[in-house]
Amino acid sequence: MNVRIISIGDELLIGQTVNTNAAWLGKELALLGARILEVWTISDDPKSIERALELNGADLILMTGGLGPTKDDRTKKVLANYFEMPLVLHEPTLAHISAFFERRNRPMLQANIDQALVPNGCEILANRWGTAVGMWFNAQGKSVISLPGVPYEMKGIFNEEIRPRIQARYSLNALFHRTIITQGLGESFLAERIAHWEESLEEAQLTLAYLPSPGLVKLRIGSYRGRSDEALIHSKIKELEELIPSLIVGYEEDTVASMVGRYLLEMGATLGTVESCTAGNLASALVEIPGSSAYFRGGLLTYQTSLKSELLDIPASIIASNDVVSETVAQRMAEAGRQRLKTDYCLSTTGIMGPSPGDSKEVVGTVWVGLATPKGLKTQKFTFGDDRSRNIEMTTLAALNMLRLTLKSEVNGNSAH
Amino acid sequence: MNVRIISIGDELLIGQTVNTNAAWLGKELALLGARILEVWTISDDPKSIERALELNGADLILMTGGLGPTKDDRTKKVLANYFEMPLVLHEPTLAHISAFFERRNRPMLQANIDQALVPNGCEILANRWGTAVGMWFNAQGKSVISLPGVPYEMKGIFNEEIRPRIQARYSLNALFHRTIITQGLGESFLAERIAHWEESLEEAQLTLAYLPSPGLVKLRIGSYRGRSDEALIHSKIKELEELIPSLIVGYEEDTVASMVGRYLLEMGATLGTVESCTAGNLASALVEIPGSSAYFRGGLLTYQTSLKSELLDIPASIIASNDVVSETVAQRMAEAGRQRLKTDYCLSTTGIMGPSPGDSKEVVGTVWVGLATPKGLKTQKFTFGDDRSRNIEMTTLAALNMLRLTLKSEVNGNSAH
Repeated sequence: MNVRIISIGDELLIGQTVNTNAAWLGKELALLGARILEVWTISDDPKSIERALELNGADLILMTGGLGPTKDDRTKKVLANYFEMPLVLHEPTLAHISAFFERRNRPMLQANIDQALVPNGCEILANRWGTAVGMWFNAQGKSVISLPGVPYEMKGIFNEEIRPRIQARYSLNALFHRTIITQGLGESFLAERIAHWEESLEEAQLTLAYLPSPGLVKLRIGSYRGRSDEALIHSKIKELEELIPSLIVGYEEDTVASMVGRYLLEMGATLGTVESCTAGNLASALVEIPGSSAYFRGGLLTYQTSLKSELLDIPASIIASNDVVSETVAQRMAEAGRQRLKTDYCLSTTGIMGPSPGDSKEVVGTVWVGLATPKGLKTQKFTFGDDRSRNIEMTTLAALNMLRLTLKSEVNGNSAH
Repeated sequence: MNVRIISIGDELLIGQTVNTNAAWLGKELALLGARILEVWTISDDPKSIERALELNGADLILMTGGLGPTKDDRTKKVLANYFEMPLVLHEPTLAHISAFFERRNRPMLQANIDQALVPNGCEILANRWGTAVGMWFNAQGKSVISLPGVPYEMKGIFNEEIRPRIQARYSLNALFHRTIITQGLGESFLAERIAHWEESLEEAQLTLAYLPSPGLVKLRIGSYRGRSDEALIHSKIKELEELIPSLIVGYEEDTVASMVGRYLLEMGATLGTVESCTAGNLASALVEIPGSSAYFRGGLLTYQTSLKSELLDIPASIIASNDVVSETVAQRMAEAGRQRLKTDYCLSTTGIMGPSPGDSKEVVGTVWVGLATPKGLKTQKFTFGDDRSRNIEMTTLAALNMLRLTLKSEVNGNSAH
């Protein structure tokens, strides 16, 4: 089953909105066993939408966008014309829209009522989250699904109305893929180290993709023959585990934060953060993991320099003589945090994210990370670039990874006893 | 100048990576005056890349991805074949790659040396950030640029090597667009309110797009005739400002956090946060704004319930009798934060993000936001859904917006005196 995803909207083309819908749909469709031929992001003018409908080669076309109540929403009209299905009033949809506005105590406008007009002959996919229904067309030798572009409406309709229909209507071998997360070698060195193993994958007609991200390289092994290759892929992963045991740090959807969480749960230990330059981004990454409240107690955000003295009792003279971005300040922050938050571990960050150097004499991109543990203090210096957002992101990842490595060696050390 | 963006990589199709590169390139190219015909995201197999090269209708094709040192990187070979340019060693690139590895004290592998092989006849676009060079092909009636997919390498090459060449080689009328940010009316109600004005845009051959996001609707007015329409668009914005003065909250790249920052700077006031359920996400959104250290002092992340007593002196009995997610606890948090952080304003969040209800008896999605101000306390209750990430995001936006509205009325109130 070959699927083409069509994302409609000028805001996507000119980058005002990042196309997260296509990524989400691609993931869900691939898990169902569909092969994503391509994602085509197009303008919301009628001609572009028509041209996208005419393109052949896909068993199913899944469109998002252009179904809202305003004049720049043209998808429904184009579909009605293309499939020669005149727009007619769909009473259940009108009732749903009326109830939607009644519940919110808002008057209904003509534009909202018009959303209950649907092409006569398409299948209606109910939208419990908004007023634009989804539509499934089976005509002129084509299967086309049209969904609103608002992400949670699109996801809701997909989950409730589309996934079950795809499973019932198509016989699919789910794409089977497994992801191994490595850390410690860059992409090309890792490739050299596992070259023979990679060749054996090719012989077995399995695919391998390298997915580098800051500090990590993910390896994705896949087969388009579906779940029948599960055992084969499993045996290849075993081989890899024997080949590079120390480099494998996780599997599938693992993140550094989820690995940290697993170690802390295993140890029954608690964690806190004292953040300056990351200002909550580090804690935020930790609590993205459901269940993190079992080990993450909380944190102190000492963003302004004076708060480091007021909340953590680090003397202003020590900050002044060492620089606010220094090993000493990172140590003091982690130490004070561990005491005040009453945790086993405490991470601290202090650095200059840019564009201006703030209170520090260091250059933009300089970061010190501190880690207080039951066994003592660790620190590490990092030098990143001059992009503020990226510096915050890299500092967060560096701090999490420093903690991960420390916890890993403690868990392994303990289990050896 | 019509541009087609081709994003290469299976990881994009199956949603392991969100296509942020295309959004960035779309924005930059649109600002240069190019019209983005479409973004085509394709598999990294050679046939898909060849098919993408054969498609006509674009003056320039900009490809990203598939230039790494590993076997799943096939773009360069496909381009060399397509343009019939054999791969030859490019000495300056080899020197750059050697220096790159020397600086990092790492040995160079054959795969890295091979990255200095380039199609004979294309223009080389230097990559100061990595080892995969960019390439510009002008042959067979086509202009094709190929860039690595690593975002900061791609951006670096675009900024230094591509933008100046595009400006020199094409005569462009930059796409002129202006964005007005509104708050207070949903998309369809806003459309009804400004219907006449919208019709006058159509008569003037200007485009209007509605870009709804949680709590806000952005209006983008554009012209493909470029900067010559600047005065026309400006006059249309003036008309809109007279039509809906109280609904316009910002312009262009404004975010709720940047608007909050402007008000605080204008008032010379300071801000702190006491976060439970958002656990740093709120502070993180505030410090995304460069210069935020002038008004954002810092925060307290009292994630576990017991920390609310230990750090903020909220008696456990009060938490137990009111529920940890309650108006009283949100008030106490904001009040204690304002005192401890010594700020003029302090925002607090307490809620249940899911999947489990934690220490609260409320349902997942329930949130209380508190705001301590020099004039007293405010609270607001919100009910979101059952998606953890979305709940955190919505709570952050709700808290920022509550602060924005408060600051707005204070600034306006003060200026009336």
